[in-house]
Amino acid sequence: MQDAITKAVPTGVWVVTARSGEKINGMTAAWATQVSFKPRLVAVSIAPPRYTYSLIKESGYFCLNLLSEDQKELANHFGFKSGKKVDKFKGIDYENGLKGSPIIKEAIAYVECEVQDTFTTGDHDLFVGEVIDVAELKPEAKPLIFKWEDFFGKK
Amino acid sequence: MQDAITKAVPTGVWVVTARSGEKINGMTAAWATQVSFKPRLVAVSIAPPRYTYSLIKESGYFCLNLLSEDQKELANHFGFKSGKKVDKFKGIDYENGLKGSPIIKEAIAYVECEVQDTFTTGDHDLFVGEVIDVAELKPEAKPLIFKWEDFFGKK
Repeated sequence: MQDAITKAVPTGVWVVTARSGEKINGMTAAWATQVSFKPRLVAVSIAPPRYTYSLIKESGYFCLNLLSEDQKELANHFGFKSGKKVDKFKGIDYENGLKGSPIIKEAIAYVECEVQDTFTTGDHDLFVGEVIDVAELKPEAKPLIFKWEDFFGKK
Repeated sequence: MQDAITKAVPTGVWVVTARSGEKINGMTAAWATQVSFKPRLVAVSIAPPRYTYSLIKESGYFCLNLLSEDQKELANHFGFKSGKKVDKFKGIDYENGLKGSPIIKEAIAYVECEVQDTFTTGDHDLFVGEVIDVAELKPEAKPLIFKWEDFFGKK
C-alpha cells in the first residue's frame, strides 16, 4: 500500500537542513509542499526522533534543498545515517542561508523558511514555514521525483 | 518568487474530488503530500472559498486523482471553472469511491481519504486525511509535475 500511495502522491526529494548554533544537519525527505500564497508558506513533514527535527525546533528555521534526478547517491548519503553520529556535511559543499541553515551548492534549488506553525500529523510533525529566501541554482536540471523502490526496494 | 517556489517544491497535479449527498465536484490542485506512515495520512491544501472545500467540509472525505503529463487539458478543465456554476463532470468518466468521492477513470492513480484534521495554513486550509483506498490505474503513465507557467504563464 505504501508504494501505491507514493505513486499516487508524487513529490520531489529534498535534503532538509537546519542549524542551531554551531550544530548543523541535513536529512533526506520527500514529504513537502507549498500550502499558502499569502503569506508564502511551505510545509515539510519530519519524524520527531530525527536530529534535524531537534535543530528545527531549537532554531525555528529550515531549508529545503531540492535534488536532481541524478543525485540519488546524495539522497542516500543524507538519508541513511544519523547526524547525531556522523558529520553528514563532511565533503559536502555548502554555504549558510540567511538564517544559517545550510544551502547545498549542488542542489537544483533551495527554499529557506521560518517556522510559523508545527502540527502533529500521525507519526510525523508538519513544520509550516514562511519563505524567507528561494533560488534556483541549476535551472536546466530535472528534479528527482520520489519513488519508493529507489530507496527502500519493492514494498 | 512564486515561480521559484514552485520549482523548488515540485509536486504532482491532482483533481481533488468530493461528494456531499448528490453534490459532487472536483478541482485541480498541486499542493499535496503524504505526512505520516502510521496512520497513513495524506494532506492537501485547499482555499476555503472553493466549492470542493465546502463538499469536503460537509462530507469529511476527499479523493486525489493524479493526472499524467499529457493531461494538462483535464487540469485546465477542472482548474478554471467553479463547480458552483457548471457541472464539471459532464462528459467525464468516473465512478464512486468507497465513500462516494468521484474517481476519475482516466487518472493515473487515486487515493481516497477520510479527513482526520483540518489546519489553517495562511490563505488555505490543510485537510489531513487517512488513506482508505488507493490504486494505480495506469502504471506506465508519468505524472504531470506542476509548473507555474503551464497554467498561469510566466510570473
